Formats: sequence, C-alpha cells, structure tokens
Amino acid sequence: MFVNRMPRYEILSEQAMAQLDAGWRRLVTEIGVEFMSDRALDLFREAGQKVEGNTVFLDPEFVLAQVAKAPKEFEVQARNPEHSVHIGGEAMAFGAVYGPPFVREGEVRRDGTFDDYRNFLRLAQSFSALDSAGGVVCEPNDTPLDSRHLDMNLALMTLTDKIYMGNVVSGPNAADTIAMSEILFGGREAIEKTPVCISLINCNSPLRWDDRMLDALFEYCGAAQPVVLTPFLLMGAMSPVTIPAALVQQMAEAFSGIALAQLIRPGCPVIFGSFLSNIDMKTGSPTFGTPESGIGLLCTGQIARHYGLPFRSGGGLTSSQVADAQAGYESLMTLMPTFLAGANWVMHSAGWLDGGLIASFEKFIVDVQILEMLRHEFTPLEIDEASLAFDAHQEVGHGGHFLGAMHTMERFRDCFYRPFLSSSDNYDRWMRGGALDANARAGQIYKATLADYVQPPLDDAIRLELEEYVVRRRAELGD
Amino acid sequence: MFVNRMPRYEILSEQAMAQLDAGWRRLVTEIGVEFMSDRALDLFREAGQKVEGNTVFLDPEFVLAQVAKAPKEFEVQARNPEHSVHIGGEAMAFGAVYGPPFVREGEVRRDGTFDDYRNFLRLAQSFSALDSAGGVVCEPNDTPLDSRHLDMNLALMTLTDKIYMGNVVSGPNAADTIAMSEILFGGREAIEKTPVCISLINCNSPLRWDDRMLDALFEYCGAAQPVVLTPFLLMGAMSPVTIPAALVQQMAEAFSGIALAQLIRPGCPVIFGSFLSNIDMKTGSPTFGTPESGIGLLCTGQIARHYGLPFRSGGGLTSSQVADAQAGYESLMTLMPTFLAGANWVMHSAGWLDGGLIASFEKFIVDVQILEMLRHEFTPLEIDEASLAFDAHQEVGHGGHFLGAMHTMERFRDCFYRPFLSSSDNYDRWMRGGALDANARAGQIYKATLADYVQPPLDDAIRLELEEYVVRRRAELGD
Repeated sequence: MFVNRMPRYEILSEQAMAQLDAGWRRLVTEIGVEFMSDRALDLFREAGQKVEGNTVFLDPEFVLAQVAKAPKEFEVQARNPEHSVHIGGEAMAFGAVYGPPFVREGEVRRDGTFDDYRNFLRLAQSFSALDSAGGVVCEPNDTPLDSRHLDMNLALMTLTDKIYMGNVVSGPNAADTIAMSEILFGGREAIEKTPVCISLINCNSPLRWDDRMLDALFEYCGAAQPVVLTPFLLMGAMSPVTIPAALVQQMAEAFSGIALAQLIRPGCPVIFGSFLSNIDMKTGSPTFGTPESGIGLLCTGQIARHYGLPFRSGGGLTSSQVADAQAGYESLMTLMPTFLAGANWVMHSAGWLDGGLIASFEKFIVDVQILEMLRHEFTPLEIDEASLAFDAHQEVGHGGHFLGAMHTMERFRDCFYRPFLSSSDNYDRWMRGGALDANARAGQIYKATLADYVQPPLDDAIRLELEEYVVRRRAELGD
Repeated sequence: MFVNRMPRYEILSEQAMAQLDAGWRRLVTEIGVEFMSDRALDLFREAGQKVEGNTVFLDPEFVLAQVAKAPKEFEVQARNPEHSVHIGGEAMAFGAVYGPPFVREGEVRRDGTFDDYRNFLRLAQSFSALDSAGGVVCEPNDTPLDSRHLDMNLALMTLTDKIYMGNVVSGPNAADTIAMSEILFGGREAIEKTPVCISLINCNSPLRWDDRMLDALFEYCGAAQPVVLTPFLLMGAMSPVTIPAALVQQMAEAFSGIALAQLIRPGCPVIFGSFLSNIDMKTGSPTFGTPESGIGLLCTGQIARHYGLPFRSGGGLTSSQVADAQAGYESLMTLMPTFLAGANWVMHSAGWLDGGLIASFEKFIVDVQILEMLRHEFTPLEIDEASLAFDAHQEVGHGGHFLGAMHTMERFRDCFYRPFLSSSDNYDRWMRGGALDANARAGQIYKATLADYVQPPLDDAIRLELEEYVVRRRAELGD
C-alpha cells in the first residue's frame, strides 16, 4: 500500500486551530447533538452527560477523553494478507466510489445492475492503486432489495481478496456482514483481533445521528470493526456557508460519534470522517472538486492529526456528467489535496461522476491513472552523488543529448512513471490510432482489464458456507 | 493581480539543498558553459573568468556575486496601469501559451493564422485571470516571416493593454520590439525606469547558450528589460534522467545566463527560468503534466527563493491532442504545483495542447477556469467569530438546513467561487441543454467572449506612430 512520506501541507495557524477548538466545544455544549437511538442516549446518560429529549449536551473534556481511547493507527486484514492495509500515520488506503444508483458506460447512463457491480469489483481487484472496491460501488438495482446486501457481500468476498466496506443500511444488515466476515476469516475471535471491514456511518447533518445508522454503528463497534464517523456537509445546505463554520461543525459531529463508538466499545478503531463540499448558491446543486472543498480537505487533515485520529477524506469527486476535461480537473482538484493532506482512508477514489449519482467505467480508469501519478509524485526524491549525474555531463558535453548516455542506459526502464491512459503520441500517430480522446481510450482499457481479470482463489468450503449463508438468510428475509 | 499568501510547499531538506548547491558549482567549474557569442565571451574574460574556445569555466563565487546584483522583485508596467504587474515575492503573473505553430478549434487542427493570433489576444485581454497574452500565442503562419514580429508586436500593443513578451528570434527583432515599446510608453527613459516587456531567453541545453538568443539578450538587457533565463530540460534528452541532476543543470544554466545579464547591465531584472519535464523513454516523445515535472516545479521554487530570485515555471501543460480528461488532469497536475510553489511568472497558463505544438481555443477556456479556481483555493481562510456561525446553528437546529438562515442570506452572493465553465447541472437539465461536455461548452464560451470583446482605447497619435514604424521596417526588411 502507499505510504506518503512527503511533507503535509498545513495552512491553519496555531491561533486558527485554537479558534476552531473553541468553536466545536461551544456547539456540543450549547446546541448539543441529537442521537435518534435510546441505546445511545442511555450510554451518554450513564456516562454523566446531560440528555434532554434526543439531544445530548456534551462536556468537551469528556468527548476528548473518549476520543483519546481510539487507536491512532490500526490494521485491517484482507483475506489475501498481501492486501491488508494500515490505517493512520503516513499510510493512505484507497477505495472505489460508494453509493451511485446509476452507471455510465460509453454514451449511456442507466440504472446500475448486479452485473455492473461485479464488473466494478473485478476492476478494483485488478488495479494495485486501489486497496479496496469499497462497498456499494453501484447500486445493483436488479437484485431483491431486502437481501441485496448479501449479494454484494458475497461478491466482495469472492471476486476480490482486498478489504471491503460493511453494509450500513440497518443493524440486521450489519450483523449479516459481520456473520459472513466470521465465515470468511475463521470466526469471531479472528475478526475481533484484527478487523476486516470498514463501515461508513454518516451523520444526518447538522448535528443529528439517525437510528438506522446508529444501529449499524452498535453492531460494528460491538464486533470491534472500524467505523468512519462522517459529517455529511454540503456548505449552504447541511452547514453554514463559511468554511470555518463547516470545520467546527465537522469536529462537533465526528467527535460526538466517536465518543459514542468508544462508549459502545472502548478502544474500537474509528476514523474521523469528512465529506465536505458546497452547493451552487444560485441553483442549489451540490458541487464537487471546488476550491472550497480543497481548502476544507487540507484543514481536515491538520485537525485530525491535531486530535490524534486517522481521517477519511478526498477522492476523485466531480459534478461532471461525463469523463471530460471538467471531470479530469475536478477529480485532481480533490485528489491532489488528498495527498497533500495525507488522507488515511480515501473513499470515492475511482469511478465517481455526477456528484456521486453515477458510477462510470471510463471515469474509473481516469481516476486510477491520476492515483498512479500522484503516488509517484508523492514519493520523496533521493538525492545522492550518483543522482547528480556528473559523469553523464562529462560524457555528453555541451549541446549534446542524454538518450544514449551510460547514466540513462542504467536507469531508463524505471526512471520515470509511464502512464497507461495518458497519451503522448504525436498528432499523426494519434490520428492513425483513431483520434481517440482519454474517455474513448479509458473505454478500451476497462474492457481489456475485465477480459484479463482472474478471480482470486478461495477455499471451496468457505465459499460454500458463504453461499449457504446467503441462501438461508435470503429465505428468512422473504426475498 | 494575484498575490499568493498561502504557505509554500517545500520538499527539499537543508542537506538536499546543500548537495544541489555543490552540484551546480562543480558543473560550471569543471564542465563549464558554452556561450556562442564573442561579446559574451569577452565580457566573461574581462570579468576574470577562464574562457577556452566557446566554453566559460565559471567561478561559482563570481556567479553568485553576479546573481546578487539582480533585483529580488520588480515592476513591469502595462499601458493600462491597472494591468501593471509585480514580479517576485508572493506575486504571481500569468501569460498565455507561447510558441505553437498549430491551432485547434473544435475538431480541426490546422496551421495558426494571424486571425487566430489576434483572437487569442482578444481572449487574453478579456479574462482577468491572465496578466498577459504572452508573446507568440500561436505562430501567424500567413504573415511574412521576416516582419512577422512587427505584426505581432502591433497586435499585442493595440488589442491588449496588458504587459507583453518581447520577440527573441534575433537581435534586430528585439531592437524592433524595444523601439515600438518606446513609442508606446513615451521614450527610452520611460521604459528603462520601469520595464514594459518580459523576454524568454532559452538555453540550448545542456550547457550551451546560442548566438541568436544571446543577441536578443544583449538588446533587452541593454534596455533594462527583464529576461527569463530558461534551461530547456526534457529529462532523458537535454538533461540526465534523474530529477536532482536536472535541478543542478538548471541552476548551472540559469545562473550562468543571469551572470551574463548582470555583466551586460548590472541590476537588470531577471527571472530564474524553468521548463522541466521528461520524455517517454520508450517512444522518445516529450511528456507533460507528469509526476516528475510536478516534483521539479516544487523544487525549482524552493531553489529560486534560496538564491533570492523571482522564478518562472508551471503553466497548463499537457501532451493531449484535445481538451479531454487527460488535458484537464495534466494541466492541473502542473498548475497546482505552480501555486504550491508560488511561481512568479507563469507562461503557458492558457491554451496549450499537444506538448505545446497546438494552441487551442477550447483549452484556453479550460485553463482560465482552472486558474480562477486555484486563485480562490490559494486565498487564506479568514477565521473569526462571525465565520464560525454559531448564531446560524441556533437558528437552524438539529437536522435542519441552512439555505434560508440569516448567516447564509448575508453571504450567499460571494461565499463560494462560481465557475463559468464547469457544470453542476443534474442529468436531466444537462441532457436538455444538449449533453455538452466541457470541451463543447468551452467552444461556446470562447466564441461568446470574442463577440463581447471591446478593444482597449489607445491614443490615435501613438497608434499611428506604431503603424508607421511597422510599415517602414517591413519595407526595410524587404517583406
């Protein structure tokens, strides 16, 4: 996996950090946070926090004591140990887009299907730039709703051998995910010792945690599986229009969720979540890859480090409907700050279009290309005598060229990153190749990648047990 | 103009900087630098440097003493004082693409014409993100070769009221540019007091300065006009394949050129130039927007600051043939480091395609869009009590929305940057609008911008004198 040993780009002064710190403290103390779960309210009450109706008024020192119980860094094991990941510190792990109901392929946008879902999983398995397919890469709309999570889990566990995300639609869905994980990894003890899936718990911002998400939180924390407590902030809608206000709200929401996670199970791994962008104030549309979201991302990283938490942010976000120039620059406008901030868990790293409503095969390839470039760009330079190449200058002389120099011959194979999507063909060669733009070439690449896909091996007994679990539970669910 | 008050992203340690410093010293001392100009050789000889044939073996301490004579920061005046720029410090000035022989418009690539040239100038005049049209935005192939520079100068001076770049094809061309500048600004004294044009002096890398470029250098330095001494480094061809070697060579070349400029006229404003990318080692094609060029750019900024020089680097570079996703991410892959490094003079900021061989109208718009976004992103956050929006939370409460909050109403007009090219239309609206991708929308925007263009006013007497100069010189040149 990728370890980002480059410096972090930090833009908040100590004074600014102190102001933000005072801000979230005031929010949790005076406005409080709503938890739509009696179990959650009971835990907070027992811990001495003031509860009125569904609102918990939190003591900031209590919150920070809870936050301090979370591990700064932790491991998540994949069924192929080579694909296990480290979350936190300088490590960065990447998952594909999460949640789109639609799929785009070539010129067509349509409802996502289970075939699409499986193909996205095969792509995620095929590219080393991705540590995970994520979870809901697209909604498999042609599978039965109540048991869909079983189909997705089975696909994640058999078509990929990377880490996966847990289903969070309900508590029972989370319990199914945990049960299937126990089958895959050999029992409860194995997955509690080293967790196996990461689950996204979104806040119903501003300042409210909903019941179904909290039910899933209880399940995953109970099994010591990491949860990403994520304020869902589109500035102007779910938060005020100023970035500092959004940051303060993000802290209040994430910290309150983390405090609950630590009440459920002290020491449970958590990730400080951030999903922070803004709406277009003229149309109300959400917008992505914006300057504001880039600033927010840089600040979020600095804040998470300040409180000693791994954090989730970033991805290849765009409002564009197609994998065009806008999609290219907006994705990088999020992904470059993702690397500058050193995000630890990066959802939506590949395939996102249309504000997250569309999973695109072509955009998936574009994003993997960008990820590979950034991994090279964020690798520290090695400067030593040999890298200064004085001998090459002696050999080549003034006005010569280095193509055939000894220094070049020794290094030409791997001195530069070589892209697989970007073209540097000259005009004539490009025309002879059919004058394909990046979108068209991405279409060829994803098809070739799917054709070359090889399913990772899995013990037949385990596969059978997983399949039997799905059949049994589907029957119980009446699908 | 834009002043970048965000922190610089620096990745070189003190030790690395010391190694690079030792590297360029060894190059200029032991390999030396070729100057294909007797005037230059004489100046170096008189200054006590060892000259053998065309090679000057430089004393690094002498070089640094010369470099120290250059101003750290300086002004360049535009004929409209509102468009004058500051070069150096935190200021960033942006010019359009420079040098392409071809133009792309819609689906067609063709030879650039003078009509194209003038249209690009009108676009550069129209967008505040650009401080200059640059110089050779495209080659006007349908104008007579020997007097082409006169046509371009007249267009730059009349169709825009921003700063411009000087012609560097030969010494006489440079002299014409200076003579026309004297007409435009009211005499030699006026332009020597505050310079009016910036000229690009490229090195014939490795380690050779050619005669025609040096002839132009002598002219511009003689008139106290700023010159950009630019090593032209495609790693693998004009420099070794390791980034540290390229950085060291860049220092040796730029510093040697700057030393000459200071010999010609002590105190002449100069800019440390950088044009640093790499070739594809399999095909030999130049590649742009690469991870290697991003790293080089960040290092270049740090090096220039270390030696107290303003620097030129960056731009919206790409190898792509069209304004597609690749063009989007490669341009930003250069432009984001341009801002992170705080480049002072940014050539090729708009319109570059195909490794600089094509000037594209659509890409021009894409790049201006990216520049506007980055200007917003690189504006420091203001964090104060009001920006934390506590009152808005009191007003909105848990699970509500901020669309109608007082805090929002007070700020909705300018709280977020609103893009002019990027679309955040939802799918249905986008389909109703014709399903136009960013390239197609950019085509509409540049045409509308040209339709709205208004030529900036110019005193009739000055215009007449410029036109007479062109007619007279064209006749002398036999065109």
